[in-house]
Amino acid sequence: MSSSKAMTLNPDPSPPKSYSLEELARYLGASIKGDPLIRVGGLGSLEDAQAGELSFVSHERYRPLAVNCRAAALIVPHTMEDLDRPLLITGQPYLAMARAAQLFFEPPATPLGVHETAVVGEGVEVGKDACIGPLVHVGPGCRIGEGTRIYGGTYLGREVEVGAHCMLHPHVTLLDRCRVGDRVIIHSGTVIGSDGFGFAQDELGHHVKIPQVGIVQIDDDVEIGANCTIDRAAFGRTWIQRGTKIDNLVQIAHNVVVGEHSILIAQVGVSGSTRLGKHVVLAGQVGVVGHIEIGDGARVGAQSGVGRSVKPGEDVSGSPVMPHKDWRKMVANVKRLPQLREELRRLQKNVQELEKAIHGE
Amino acid sequence: MSSSKAMTLNPDPSPPKSYSLEELARYLGASIKGDPLIRVGGLGSLEDAQAGELSFVSHERYRPLAVNCRAAALIVPHTMEDLDRPLLITGQPYLAMARAAQLFFEPPATPLGVHETAVVGEGVEVGKDACIGPLVHVGPGCRIGEGTRIYGGTYLGREVEVGAHCMLHPHVTLLDRCRVGDRVIIHSGTVIGSDGFGFAQDELGHHVKIPQVGIVQIDDDVEIGANCTIDRAAFGRTWIQRGTKIDNLVQIAHNVVVGEHSILIAQVGVSGSTRLGKHVVLAGQVGVVGHIEIGDGARVGAQSGVGRSVKPGEDVSGSPVMPHKDWRKMVANVKRLPQLREELRRLQKNVQELEKAIHGE
Amino acid sequence: MSSSKAMTLNPDPSPPKSYSLEELARYLGASIKGDPLIRVGGLGSLEDAQAGELSFVSHERYRPLAVNCRAAALIVPHTMEDLDRPLLITGQPYLAMARAAQLFFEPPATPLGVHETAVVGEGVEVGKDACIGPLVHVGPGCRIGEGTRIYGGTYLGREVEVGAHCMLHPHVTLLDRCRVGDRVIIHSGTVIGSDGFGFAQDELGHHVKIPQVGIVQIDDDVEIGANCTIDRAAFGRTWIQRGTKIDNLVQIAHNVVVGEHSILIAQVGVSGSTRLGKHVVLAGQVGVVGHIEIGDGARVGAQSGVGRSVKPGEDVSGSPVMPHKDWRKMVANVKRLPQLREELRRLQKNVQELEKAIHGE
Repeated sequence: MSSSKAMTLNPDPSPPKSYSLEELARYLGASIKGDPLIRVGGLGSLEDAQAGELSFVSHERYRPLAVNCRAAALIVPHTMEDLDRPLLITGQPYLAMARAAQLFFEPPATPLGVHETAVVGEGVEVGKDACIGPLVHVGPGCRIGEGTRIYGGTYLGREVEVGAHCMLHPHVTLLDRCRVGDRVIIHSGTVIGSDGFGFAQDELGHHVKIPQVGIVQIDDDVEIGANCTIDRAAFGRTWIQRGTKIDNLVQIAHNVVVGEHSILIAQVGVSGSTRLGKHVVLAGQVGVVGHIEIGDGARVGAQSGVGRSVKPGEDVSGSPVMPHKDWRKMVANVKRLPQLREELRRLQKNVQELEKAIHGE
Repeated sequence: MSSSKAMTLNPDPSPPKSYSLEELARYLGASIKGDPLIRVGGLGSLEDAQAGELSFVSHERYRPLAVNCRAAALIVPHTMEDLDRPLLITGQPYLAMARAAQLFFEPPATPLGVHETAVVGEGVEVGKDACIGPLVHVGPGCRIGEGTRIYGGTYLGREVEVGAHCMLHPHVTLLDRCRVGDRVIIHSGTVIGSDGFGFAQDELGHHVKIPQVGIVQIDDDVEIGANCTIDRAAFGRTWIQRGTKIDNLVQIAHNVVVGEHSILIAQVGVSGSTRLGKHVVLAGQVGVVGHIEIGDGARVGAQSGVGRSVKPGEDVSGSPVMPHKDWRKMVANVKRLPQLREELRRLQKNVQELEKAIHGE
Repeated sequence: MSSSKAMTLNPDPSPPKSYSLEELARYLGASIKGDPLIRVGGLGSLEDAQAGELSFVSHERYRPLAVNCRAAALIVPHTMEDLDRPLLITGQPYLAMARAAQLFFEPPATPLGVHETAVVGEGVEVGKDACIGPLVHVGPGCRIGEGTRIYGGTYLGREVEVGAHCMLHPHVTLLDRCRVGDRVIIHSGTVIGSDGFGFAQDELGHHVKIPQVGIVQIDDDVEIGANCTIDRAAFGRTWIQRGTKIDNLVQIAHNVVVGEHSILIAQVGVSGSTRLGKHVVLAGQVGVVGHIEIGDGARVGAQSGVGRSVKPGEDVSGSPVMPHKDWRKMVANVKRLPQLREELRRLQKNVQELEKAIHGE
């Protein structure tokens, strides 16, 4: 092969991890069936798990797969503790699987330290064990926290702050003065801190740009998918609060606030200055107008159009939205419209006949 | 800190700008209340403005905030000229604010000239005071106008023309032979000149690619948001005309023409060969089929599906679209469907009773 | 001009190609009218074609343009063989045009071999005549097939496999261990192998990440548009099968399978673990829920919301979807709702009058 700038890898990749059922049971708060000294060295699905790996069953309907699975042990719900093989038994097998998977997970490798092809501005602070990958740009005055990994081709503008143990995947764009907390994950192609869409119209109907001088703030434990766009505030900040998870191709306009532990599924769009509460769920392709509030724990069905504020805990669907129950009825009623027309026609005929009967020809 | 390729900044950043109320009043066409020699050095929102800054009020409902604002002066509408503080009074406070904000705005800094890590092809012409940032690629034969800023990580293919005083933010992709006018702003992640989606089916239902040999032309004063896609024409050009503003994640297919001073909000998609007139507004998540015309000044409501041409000045909504007024009625009627069914049931009963009364048991 | 790293172009670009009508007729399976030795050196639309080029007419309605076209020869359907000029006559003029256009098409130029600014990891295999452009990153252990072009600024993670004669346009992101077949085209800004959106909820309603350890597999002859996102599987693979064409800004979630020769138009979103059959068509902005099946040859109308499995060959539309015919009726019925209400009101009045007539005042 032909190579111009060789890339040195971490010289000694960590050896494969393994854990005993005993260790896992303690970590996951599960109980054990079978030999507690059995060691597992990875996690696989029921179909794909290899001998020596751990697998999991979340539901009774997968019992046949569980019986035939090659895994050394299974995480199962209490209802399946009768399975005749080594088990970790827990009330929440799906959550236990997630936690076990994290134990085995190795993030994508990247060279340690600052790669020779990275462009790093003046006055940048880089924390201990942080990685700044190949062809990365880190503008002047940035601060990168301990253990944070900035993968190849990512761009940070000036005076960006990124906390500890973050992962910025390849080709992320994080623009001037934006702030990112700890343990934040941002996937490839996502742009944070692009200008909000703000214009005033002049006398001729031309659009005069309102410079967007605010920032984006992203709090701890947020994850943002690929090719999302989160615009900087006109003034102040656009704010994604702690623990919120955002899927791919989501648009967040200027000055939006998304509360803690919310979920925004792919292709959602939220317009300017709208505030989402905590634990809000917006399903795929939902659109939300600007300057409204969506209360804590509200849930919005896929493809809905949210044109008004939503109360805490409300479930809404439709475009425009209505309570989810009403939407279900509405959908059913709309489907039965041809039948409704038919009934009306028949009734009109009956009435005509009655009229004839009474008033004669 | 650890740095591989140090980035030299503009050595002497411009000192903070300040303007007197007198200067601003003349520039904005506003009248003054208070001392015309008061100087302001920045613009802030009513909540955030600091002493020494300018702020603005667009509406009577913000009067309480205006009273307590720390700003040295306020831009206000005529209806608020009674406020007892230094004022710039104008018929269009929002427009005046936009213009004032532009006076104070400093675009993101970038090193002057061509950065040492940029890859610049043969025969490239770079205008006076243009900046070509770190890790930028400028293909052979490109022409870059005076004062244009190409931020880090942006890619220009071959023979791309970019006019004067443009801003291409980080990670823009501007492919072969595309043409961009003056004062154009393109935000990060946007792709201009990707192939149009054109295929012919063969006898087996396989899709045979039609090479896309046209270009994209973007006229003066256009702004395009982050992570948009504007495909090159099959033949000829895809054309975004003067003054049009496009939000994030918008898709423009091959051979589309978007007329002057139009507005396309986030996540809009316009299919191939459709023509939009001047001053058209497409709200968020609108979809438009191919080969239709949307007339000058037409407006399309959020999430609408435009499956037919729209007349100049028409307001439409819904999927498929109908006149906006009809759509509002339709939405109300659909909501009342359960009630309509109920009324029909009652009437059926009444008619049955009448039938009994007339014809007996 | 000012240049830092000069880029050497292929020294001898291929001279303009030309073909005789005889050669083209044989290649396209068309018959000739006129001099078979006429040579054409390019393809243009009816409006733009130059003397010496080939053009095409797909439909009778373009006859006036065909009569005035400057092209040296035209591809026409049998119904237009009466045109008095050199012709290539075929049953499928659109398909013939696509094939002819491919003969003349030159892909964007890129320097041969590995560019000096590319970062190439250890153990990378690069096939014969492959190009790895400026500022590209190719992670350790990647394999790049013969004749494949990786344009500037594209990022490949570790152990990525790309087959022969592929085109990865600028700023593509292809993450660890993903696999791409032969003759695959991926457009700029597209991210392949980002994490699937998988979380388990803990006792506090916090979202615990499920590490996504699967891959994305893309089979031969697939084309993927700009700024798409295709997530890696939780376990196993997300799989785009042979010949499928995907437009811009499309989202494919983890563990989705898209069957052969399908078409996904711009801004479509497909949720996790859903399986599409062969020759499926999803029109623009369609959303599909997770864990369902869309059968071979099914077609889904623009902006539809697919919340249930779709049978092979079924045509569906609406949100939620229904058979396309029912949807058309439903749309018409919904439009006539005001009229329906009106008829009901009149009938109510008639019935009241009847009641009066029978029962008296």
